[in-house]
Order: sequence, then C-alpha cells, then structure tokens
Amino acid sequence: MKQKKVAIIMGSRSDLAEVEKTAKVLSDLGIGYEMHIISAHRTPDTASGFAQRAEAEGFDVIIAAAGKAAHLAGVMAAGTVLPVIGIPMKTGDLGGMDSLLSTVQMPKGVPVATVAIGGAENAAILAAQILACSDNGLRAALKEYRKKMAEEVAEADRELNK
Amino acid sequence: MKQKKVAIIMGSRSDLAEVEKTAKVLSDLGIGYEMHIISAHRTPDTASGFAQRAEAEGFDVIIAAAGKAAHLAGVMAAGTVLPVIGIPMKTGDLGGMDSLLSTVQMPKGVPVATVAIGGAENAAILAAQILACSDNGLRAALKEYRKKMAEEVAEADRELNK
Amino acid sequence: MKQKKVAIIMGSRSDLAEVEKTAKVLSDLGIGYEMHIISAHRTPDTASGFAQRAEAEGFDVIIAAAGKAAHLAGVMAAGTVLPVIGIPMKTGDLGGMDSLLSTVQMPKGVPVATVAIGGAENAAILAAQILACSDNGLRAALKEYRKKMAEEVAEADRELNK
Amino acid sequence: MKQKKVAIIMGSRSDLAEVEKTAKVLSDLGIGYEMHIISAHRTPDTASGFAQRAEAEGFDVIIAAAGKAAHLAGVMAAGTVLPVIGIPMKTGDLGGMDSLLSTVQMPKGVPVATVAIGGAENAAILAAQILACSDNGLRAALKEYRKKMAEEVAEADRELNK
Amino acid sequence: MKQKKVAIIMGSRSDLAEVEKTAKVLSDLGIGYEMHIISAHRTPDTASGFAQRAEAEGFDVIIAAAGKAAHLAGVMAAGTVLPVIGIPMKTGDLGGMDSLLSTVQMPKGVPVATVAIGGAENAAILAAQILACSDNGLRAALKEYRKKMAEEVAEADRELNK
Amino acid sequence: MKQKKVAIIMGSRSDLAEVEKTAKVLSDLGIGYEMHIISAHRTPDTASGFAQRAEAEGFDVIIAAAGKAAHLAGVMAAGTVLPVIGIPMKTGDLGGMDSLLSTVQMPKGVPVATVAIGGAENAAILAAQILACSDNGLRAALKEYRKKMAEEVAEADRELNK
Amino acid sequence: MKQKKVAIIMGSRSDLAEVEKTAKVLSDLGIGYEMHIISAHRTPDTASGFAQRAEAEGFDVIIAAAGKAAHLAGVMAAGTVLPVIGIPMKTGDLGGMDSLLSTVQMPKGVPVATVAIGGAENAAILAAQILACSDNGLRAALKEYRKKMAEEVAEADRELNK
Amino acid sequence: MKQKKVAIIMGSRSDLAEVEKTAKVLSDLGIGYEMHIISAHRTPDTASGFAQRAEAEGFDVIIAAAGKAAHLAGVMAAGTVLPVIGIPMKTGDLGGMDSLLSTVQMPKGVPVATVAIGGAENAAILAAQILACSDNGLRAALKEYRKKMAEEVAEADRELNK
Repeated sequence: MKQKKVAIIMGSRSDLAEVEKTAKVLSDLGIGYEMHIISAHRTPDTASGFAQRAEAEGFDVIIAAAGKAAHLAGVMAAGTVLPVIGIPMKTGDLGGMDSLLSTVQMPKGVPVATVAIGGAENAAILAAQILACSDNGLRAALKEYRKKMAEEVAEADRELNK
Repeated sequence: MKQKKVAIIMGSRSDLAEVEKTAKVLSDLGIGYEMHIISAHRTPDTASGFAQRAEAEGFDVIIAAAGKAAHLAGVMAAGTVLPVIGIPMKTGDLGGMDSLLSTVQMPKGVPVATVAIGGAENAAILAAQILACSDNGLRAALKEYRKKMAEEVAEADRELNK
Repeated sequence: MKQKKVAIIMGSRSDLAEVEKTAKVLSDLGIGYEMHIISAHRTPDTASGFAQRAEAEGFDVIIAAAGKAAHLAGVMAAGTVLPVIGIPMKTGDLGGMDSLLSTVQMPKGVPVATVAIGGAENAAILAAQILACSDNGLRAALKEYRKKMAEEVAEADRELNK
Repeated sequence: MKQKKVAIIMGSRSDLAEVEKTAKVLSDLGIGYEMHIISAHRTPDTASGFAQRAEAEGFDVIIAAAGKAAHLAGVMAAGTVLPVIGIPMKTGDLGGMDSLLSTVQMPKGVPVATVAIGGAENAAILAAQILACSDNGLRAALKEYRKKMAEEVAEADRELNK
Repeated sequence: MKQKKVAIIMGSRSDLAEVEKTAKVLSDLGIGYEMHIISAHRTPDTASGFAQRAEAEGFDVIIAAAGKAAHLAGVMAAGTVLPVIGIPMKTGDLGGMDSLLSTVQMPKGVPVATVAIGGAENAAILAAQILACSDNGLRAALKEYRKKMAEEVAEADRELNK
Repeated sequence: MKQKKVAIIMGSRSDLAEVEKTAKVLSDLGIGYEMHIISAHRTPDTASGFAQRAEAEGFDVIIAAAGKAAHLAGVMAAGTVLPVIGIPMKTGDLGGMDSLLSTVQMPKGVPVATVAIGGAENAAILAAQILACSDNGLRAALKEYRKKMAEEVAEADRELNK
Repeated sequence: MKQKKVAIIMGSRSDLAEVEKTAKVLSDLGIGYEMHIISAHRTPDTASGFAQRAEAEGFDVIIAAAGKAAHLAGVMAAGTVLPVIGIPMKTGDLGGMDSLLSTVQMPKGVPVATVAIGGAENAAILAAQILACSDNGLRAALKEYRKKMAEEVAEADRELNK
Repeated sequence: MKQKKVAIIMGSRSDLAEVEKTAKVLSDLGIGYEMHIISAHRTPDTASGFAQRAEAEGFDVIIAAAGKAAHLAGVMAAGTVLPVIGIPMKTGDLGGMDSLLSTVQMPKGVPVATVAIGGAENAAILAAQILACSDNGLRAALKEYRKKMAEEVAEADRELNK
C-alpha cells in the first residue's frame, strides 16, 4: 500500500537545523518523509533527476529549502508537476530578501508555493494541507493542530490576565 | 457526485482583469471554480464566513488575490485548513512589494502558498497540481500543459534560428 | 461612570516585553487599559469578536502590535469604527519592513494609524492624544509630558556643554 | 458653539488633487475642515506657528500630506499634542518609500498616525474615527459609511456572479 | 579551425529586443555567436543539456538573459565550467531587483558574472574581454571601441561648449 | 576677530559616541565648533531658533546628525541659508535607510548636504572643505590630511606585500 | 580678478535636460559656471584630470550628476579637496536607488555632499550656500530667494482659500 | 615565460580576511596572483595607474573587492580592457546592497563582472574560468574542483541518510 510521502530537499548541510523543524511537524502529523541534501548548482543532475523521479517514487509533495539565489525549488518545479513548496532561507547580508525573490518570482507556467523566509514549520503544514485534500484523517489532524494552536494563544492570554 | 472545485477570491472589482487569467487556466484544465469579490477589510464577516464554510461547500483549494496590505489570503488561511494560494497584486507605488510581504510572511502555523506578484496563471496551475495529488487525469493534463509550454519555447527557438 | 479605556492587543506572547512599554506610558498618563494576546491568524474568531465588541465594552481606542505579515491591526480596524493604532514589530530577517507594509498599506476605507517599527511608547501617546480630544485633563497631562521630554533634552545639552 | 474641525495641510500646491479626496470624505461625513498649503521647509515658521495655534483655533485633528523627505506631519506633531495624521505622498523615483519612512519612523515621544502611501481618503476616515470618540452621531455616520462600503463589495460580487 | 563563439541564451521570446543589442556588439567586434531561446523552467532539460554540451560544441562563453526569479544563468553555470555572464532583465513590478538578486547571489562554488539590469551591451563587451585574454586582435579591437566611446563623450562635451 | 565655527547638532544623547568622531576631525584640523543636543521633534523651538540665530552667532556651517524619520538637518536647512550637512544615523531595524531617505530627499529649494549613513568623519571633512573655500591654510591642511590617508593605504599595501 | 565659479559635470549627454536646471539657478543667482560632459568610466583620465586641475582653474565647487553605479562625484571628490556635490540621477529600473547609494555611501575620508535623487536645483542652491560663506552679497541673494519661495507658498495658500 | 596572473585589489586593510579566501582558491588551482590594498577614493592615482599598467605587467584578470559606494571595480574597469571581477563587500548598515548596486549597475560600455555580496571564493573561480578559456589544464582542474564539490554534497546527503 502506497504511503503518502513528502520529500524535503535542502541546498546545503547548514540548512539542516532549520529544516529539521519541517520534519518534526510532518512527523507529528504522521506524514512519511525523506530528507535530502541536494544542491541546484553543485549537483544539478541529482537535483533534476530527483525531481523527475519524484512522482514515480511515490512522493506527493516536494519541499525545497535554499538561500541566496535560491533556485532549488524552481529546479524541482521545473522537473515535475507535483506541487513544490519553497522555503526561502534567511541570509546574513540581505536578510533573505534575495532568497525570497529567487523563490517566489517564478515565471508563468511553473509555480513554486512559497512560504515565509525561514518558514520551516509552515512548509510542513502546507504540505499536510495539500495531502489532506484526499485524506480525511489528516484533515482532522490539521484541525486538531489548529485547535491546539488556538488554545495555546488563549492560554497565554489567560496567563497574562490572571 | 462531488466535483473538484476551486474558490477564487479577489479583494476588489479592479482585480478582475488579472484574476480572469486564473479562471481561464482552470477552465482549460477542466477544473470547476467559483469566483467571488470579497474584501478582508470591508467585508470581514463574509471573508471569514466564506473560509469557514469552504470545505463544507466542497471547495478543495482557495485562491486569494489582493494588493497593498494584502490580508485576504491570510484571512482565508486562518479560517480553514484547506490549502490557500495567495496572489500578491502589483501596486502603483511600491510595485507589489507590499502585497508580496503581506501575503508571504505568514506567522508559524498558518501558511499561505504564495506565487509571484501578479502570478494569476501560476495560482491556477498550483491549484491544479494540488488537486492532481488525487486525480490522475488532471495530472496527465498538467503534463500535457507542461509539454505544450516546452514545445512553444522550442518552436520560438527554431523560429529565431530559421 | 465610564472610564476611558484602551485595548492593547498583541499577536504573540513574545511581543510582551515590547508592548509593556505601551502599557507603562498609558499607566503614567492615568489611562485605563486591558492587555490581550490574540492572534489574527491562530485565533481569528477571538480577534474579530474582540473588535466587534470593543465599542460596547467601553474601549475607545485599540492598539495592535504584530510582526511579519502583520494583519492584527487590520483585523481590528475591519471589525470596528474605533480608531485602531498599529505597531509594526521588528523582525529578525527584514528588520520590520514586512510588518510595516502589512500594517500601514491598508486599502481605501479601513485605515490603521501606524506608528514606527517598534514604536510601543508612541502608540500609547497617540492613543492618549486621541482620548484627549474630549478630555482636557489628559491634554494637560500630555503637555506636561511633552514639556518634561523637552526639558530632558535641554538638560542633556547643558550636561554636554558643562 | 465650537464645531469640530480638521486642518488639512499639504506641502505643495501639486498635492491638491490628491488631498481633495480627503476633503471630500470629511465633507460627506459632515465634518468641518480648513485646507492649507504650508511647507515644512519653505515656510517653517508658518508651519510651526500653525501647529502651535491649532488647538486654540479649535482644530481637533491635523492631517498633513507631504512627499519625499516628508517632514510636514512631524513638524505638526512637534508643535501640538493634537493627534496628527500623516499621508505619505507617492514619489516619482522611489514610489513613496521615502515619504513613508520620513513620516512613520518618528522618534519616541512624538507620534504621527501614518496611513498608506497616497491614503487620502483613509486619513479623513481616521480623523472621523478620532472625532467620533466623543460624537455619537459621527460614529453612527461612520458605521453607515462602513455598511455602504460593504454593500458595494457585495453588490460587485452579485454582479460578477449574475 | 575552431572559431571563438559565444552562446546567447534568453529565457523568453520577449527578451529578444533587448538581447539583440548583445548580438550587435559581438557582431561589431567580429565575434561569432549563436542565439537561443531556452527556458530554465519550461525547458529544463534543453537548458542543462545545452550547458553540458557547450564546451564540446566550441563555445567559450555563455551569456544568459532572464527576468524575475532568473535561474537561467545559474543553470548554465551549474552545467559547465565555461564562464557564464548573466543579464538580469528589468521587470514590470520590482524594476529588476528580483532578476538581479536571483542572478548575482550565487552560492559558493558556482559563480555567474553578473552585469547591470538590462546590461545587454555590457554582457557582450565582457564576453569580448574574456575572449581577448587569448586573442590580441580582439583586445586591440576592444581598445579601439573604448577609444571611440571616449571620443564620443569628448565630442558631446565640445558640442555642448561650442 | 571672528573665528570660523561649525555647529554640530545631534538629535539625542545616544548619538554622542558617533558624533564625537566629527568633533575629533574638526579639532585635528584646527576648526572651532560647538556641540549641542537638540531634537527636531522634542525641542522644535530650540531647533528652529538655533537655525535662525546660527549665522548671527558666527557659525558658518551646521552639521546635524539624526536617525529614523531624521528631520533635524531639514529643520536646520529650513531656518538658515548656511550650508547644512546631514549625517543619517544607522538604525536598529532598517539599517539607516529610513534616516538616509529622510535626510537626503529634501524638496526643491532647501538642500541638505548628505553624507553616508554613520558618516561622522566625512561630515567634518565636508565642513572643512566648505570653510576652506575662503581659508587657504585650511585647504592646505586638508591636502595634508588627504596625503596622510593615501600614505596609510600605501603603507598597508607595503605591509601586506612585505 | 578671480570670479567664483562652479563646475557642473554630467556623466552623459542624456543628463543635460535635468542638469540645465542646475545651471539656471546658478545663473539666476549670478554665479559663474562651466558645464561639461565627462564620464567617470568612459573618460576616466579626463575626469580625474579635471578634478585635479579644478582648484587651479579657479573653481570653488564641483557639482557632479550621474546615474546607476554613479561614480562621477566620487571620482571628483577623490581628485580634489574642493567641496563636491553629487546629484544621483533617477534610473529607469531602480528609480535612482542605485545612483543614490553609489553617490552618498562614500568611505571615510572622501565625502560627497549628496542631494536628493534628481535634485538639480538643490545642487545649485547648495553650491551657492557654500560660496556665500565668503560672499555676503550672495548670502543676501539666497535669503531673497528663500523669501520668494516662501511667498509663493503663501500665495498658493491664499489662492486656495480665496 | 609569462605566467597567468590575477591581481586581487581590495579597498581597505579590513577587507583582507574576506579576500584571503579568494587568494586561497587561486592558490589551490595553481594560479599566480598578487594582492594589493588600493583605494579608489584615497589613492585614486595608484588605482588608475594600476589599472592602466595591469595588462603590460602580465595580469590577465583583475578582481576588486570594495564596500559601500564601491567604485574600485569600476575604476579598474575604466582603466583597462582586461576583464574585471567585482566583489561587493557586506556592509554593517545596508547589508551590502549599497556595495552591490555600486558595483553591478555599471553604465553601457564598461562592464564589471559582479559576483555575490561577499563572494570571495566565487571571484577566484570566475577568474579561473576566464583563464581556462586558453588553458586546458586549468579547465580540467576546474572540472575536478566541481566534481569534488558535488561529491561533498553527495557525501553530506549519505551522512544524513545513514
């Protein structure tokens, strides 16, 4: 039986600390994933090969995290028609504005679903929302997650006003 | 029988010319949609009500187009766990940088899948990619679309080098 | 007897250290206030509910502090005709430019009175200036506050030139 | 009997076309106003004099519209404790980013209630919201205005879906 | 006998008017070139294939012109060790800042020699300067070109002061 | 006998550490100066009074350092026809872009001679260059200073290549 | 007898329409000037030669107008200790932000007195303010000019309120 | 026998830590280089003199690293027809956006091959790619370098998935 799977790709080993938050959320929601370090520029064949085989290997969604002239999500999106989610990584000089524009400003025909700069958790939640389109259990889990988030805010407010 | 449906929401009547490109692509791909003018700020109850009923009304994906302090996609995302796609509209003063940051920089927990400034067609393609996760016919249509796009580029190149 | 009241809303517990400066200034000026943690995206119903009941509950001004795609002030402004003051919070990647544009670039019809990035004290002073439109005692207090500020600058200058 | 009054100040004759929209909204809401051309840099004494006499002359709110290194609202705010609303004007080179930052980034102690770049109507609405803190009739008028706006959006949506 | 050749790649047919200026300068300097429309995102295999075969086909330099999330030069640079020159194209919303950052902010290991936004002629001159490292005739032609440019400026100055 | 004098004005006590570098350079060049803390917004009368009396008090140049919505140099320039030099101070959120635009983008008629963000030393040198227009000794001192600077660079290069 | 002279340098013939406004103001104020087209990049020797001879040729101030990577004012400033005023020209892609930063962000030791983007008239006024440090007649003329400006604003206000 | 040589120029001693990475990569690739501290603004004659003699002294490529209003690469490019590579240095206030625009936005006729902000290694690789146009051994070394880089990414991925 085919298990829903998300591929998490990061452009560099140094993105791991951030990207592990993506993995954690997927894990909490019971979604299978693989995590890979693949560089759009240093390992371009691996990158496009991965994109082209992703559907056949049973992936449903690809999440790509990269910084600076962040082409990784775009390379994924160019190589598959699976939905591709881009996480623009914060950069030390321009704060991630470069990563954001390189990820989101995709030309007509090849979209990347871009989340906030450093939006590692949100990439996972978006992936889950996509998978939940055909998975009622997952949708219920997302509602539960949302409810818990709301409750935390309410609890913080009660705490403040105690 | 439930038909896959996309809700296209725009913040103002003036966004229609742009947003009709979204509708056109969905139409070409055989995807059912509804199109609504709802303002996050001028009709907030309609906006949150729409978001909250969207799943029950059979929508699978919401596309929201808005400009300036563009909260529409965020309001949608806050009211449902359906995937929400945001189109930041070009603005006359800041070129759409305001719309982009207001749409993409969502806080942890509530993602908006943001496409390029003015990325009306790409919002439709992304919606189709999401729906195609459980619709092999649609996925095939997307591959066909991609192939046609590639062929147009190749044809333009042949034309240039004739 | 109805006491003039200001509602201070913040999007997250982590904004508290900053927002307490708002409370401090209001306190110094003898203005009643309540402080709440309410998220536009994680607790949207609480947010719009708060906005809609604010007038009836005796609030005269709402101050909303939020960062990134900062919709909180906009949600408040959409739910009431009370004056709403927005504090765009500094962000770690874009310095608060995202918060600023998301707060200030409101569409026609629904203004947010935006102060500087991180302008916690100024939000309080602006609220006081608004309340002082019908409170001569408060206006006198503001003039006193202004005079004290001026005196501090003059004193610093004298100190420097001693 | 003292009539509620708003002072609308613009930095240059060329701002008039835009600022007349502010006057129009105030007029529609039955709010008295005066309109003046005063430059913070070319007529600094007139500017600070105006600010200092504004309260005595019966003004309750000052609206200041200026572009580029837009100091006009700041000069007003420095000369009075009345609430001052700043309209950053769009500029031909930087789109109004210069006007926005010069207007909104006020130092601690002297706030300017900043609206969107070119937000002429919103400045008027914000002024009305401030005045309505002690004028129930005006508050009712604002609710009516808001209702009409909402109805226009709803009507546009019905038109679209006819 | 192998003739020095430059490959000019553009991401879209609509870039042609601009890119023809590159071709014109190369032509004037007697440098052979080919011009192709290849999209990094719509024809990714053609793009990486071109890059990988470029050296074998006798190209010495690749010039890539693209706009928005401009990955074309990066894809070229990832697929060859030939020098790759990137021309960030002006865009209608962000003026080309997106193209510039997507082209120039390449990660460690894979440089793109970026010229100004819309710097079509300069890309050609830079290519010529590179080729001239082993072609004294071309270097002499470049000096001639530089001298002519200088003479035009001097002539304009004389004209002005006549 | 009238001694050439420069007025150094800063908006806040916290600017002193930076502005002392201005004083140091003036001192090294043997130029008399006074240093004052005057706020355009908190002590507007002191500010405009200072500007208006500056010429009569024997000042030849005014240097004004301020951050954020930095109006101080503009207020000085509006109150005198002496040359006014503006130092935009670095800010914690926007890096000083706000200070820079607020200082440099002055409207037609009232210039501010703006130096780099945090350009404390350069403000002093510029003031000296202005004073040197009628002081050959000072001009000679500036040439000496320039020569020393050049020699330091040359020495650093020799050191590197030893 | 040596007449006070200003050198106006522009980087390209296309800057002339703008720069003629500088000449007009100088002319109105009775200040002698020369106008030259000299490019920092295309005629670097002419540029540095001009800077080095400027003092000997009797110039007191240099005004340099250039766009994009605008080095012209910097080259002038590097070649002389005369005060150098930079006019950053508006650009078609980035609005002049590139020109502004290239002109104003000069390193320690070599200031450029930068005016607003496209601030042609202000460059002339600043030059006059500098020359007026040792020319009481010119200072009087500047005060007259300022008075006339103020009167024009006052007249526009009277016209508006007639 | 003439050895291929690269000149590495930096604007200030403080750039050395960064620029040494350029030297290290050149060294690893067996490319001869010289390293100099030359300031475009503080030692302009040395700068233009270096540029003009660079070809005769046997240099093939010039790399120039500078920050803020970074004119150094432009001065080099104006003085020679050798290819000039610019490294925009990160700055403490604007993150290097000033350096980037000052380096890359060169006017028509005088290109600078710009790499990323702080792209010290990439400048070396680009220089090597240029030299490799007529040096097959160096081209092979670059392919080896590229292969090693790819292998490091692959190894990191294997490590992650062990």
